Amino acid sequence: MSRPQTVSLQEKFDLFTDHWSPRIVGELNGQQVKLAKISGEFIWHAHEHEDELFLVTRGTLRMRFRTHEAVVGVGEFIIVPRGVEHQPVADTEEVWMLLFEPASTVNTGTAGGERTVTELGRL
Amino acid sequence: MSRPQTVSLQEKFDLFTDHWSPRIVGELNGQQVKLAKISGEFIWHAHEHEDELFLVTRGTLRMRFRTHEAVVGVGEFIIVPRGVEHQPVADTEEVWMLLFEPASTVNTGTAGGERTVTELGRL
Repeated sequence: MSRPQTVSLQEKFDLFTDHWSPRIVGELNGQQVKLAKISGEFIWHAHEHEDELFLVTRGTLRMRFRTHEAVVGVGEFIIVPRGVEHQPVADTEEVWMLLFEPASTVNTGTAGGERTVTELGRL
Repeated sequence: MSRPQTVSLQEKFDLFTDHWSPRIVGELNGQQVKLAKISGEFIWHAHEHEDELFLVTRGTLRMRFRTHEAVVGVGEFIIVPRGVEHQPVADTEEVWMLLFEPASTVNTGTAGGERTVTELGRL
């Protein structure tokens, strides 16, 4: 019998300090809820099959697109559709965020490279 | 060309006041992001095919299950797997929450009845 439990974002964020290494904190309908701490610039990339949601809980995320830039503050989210190139940037302070995306999503998308995380931790 | 934009939860919550009538504020991967304000007790129900996530942004949600009860405060979430009967309750104050669930999800699940909302608004 399933026994659903409450999950505290703060308690989960307190369990890790490294950047650009999302942790899985929930799964539903083939999607995952991940938490990430980021600082500095990530690489430009896109996801072929996955739309991504970024909900910011600390700091200010700048999401660069080829055509514009979106600023995402605490209590705000942005959805990046599949196929759209984007570059997440946290250049003034550390940013904490919650991600909703399919379990198949790779952090660097089709760009790949050394910043790819293949085995995500679970909290 | 898609042009992703930032969405403020507060701005969206400010656009409605009624209870138990979720508004759609985002869509991705066949899932929807909804905002809801609730007060009092909802009906007992379950969803046959959909897991649901509830993330609280104001107040304290009590999620009753047949076997236990979970208290979900601000900055906390709970995932209710498909098939699990649950009753959302906001009995001390209004609760604001974000829902993440498949687009096919009906608020009353398989229970149906007069509290079913068939046409959700979009903000």
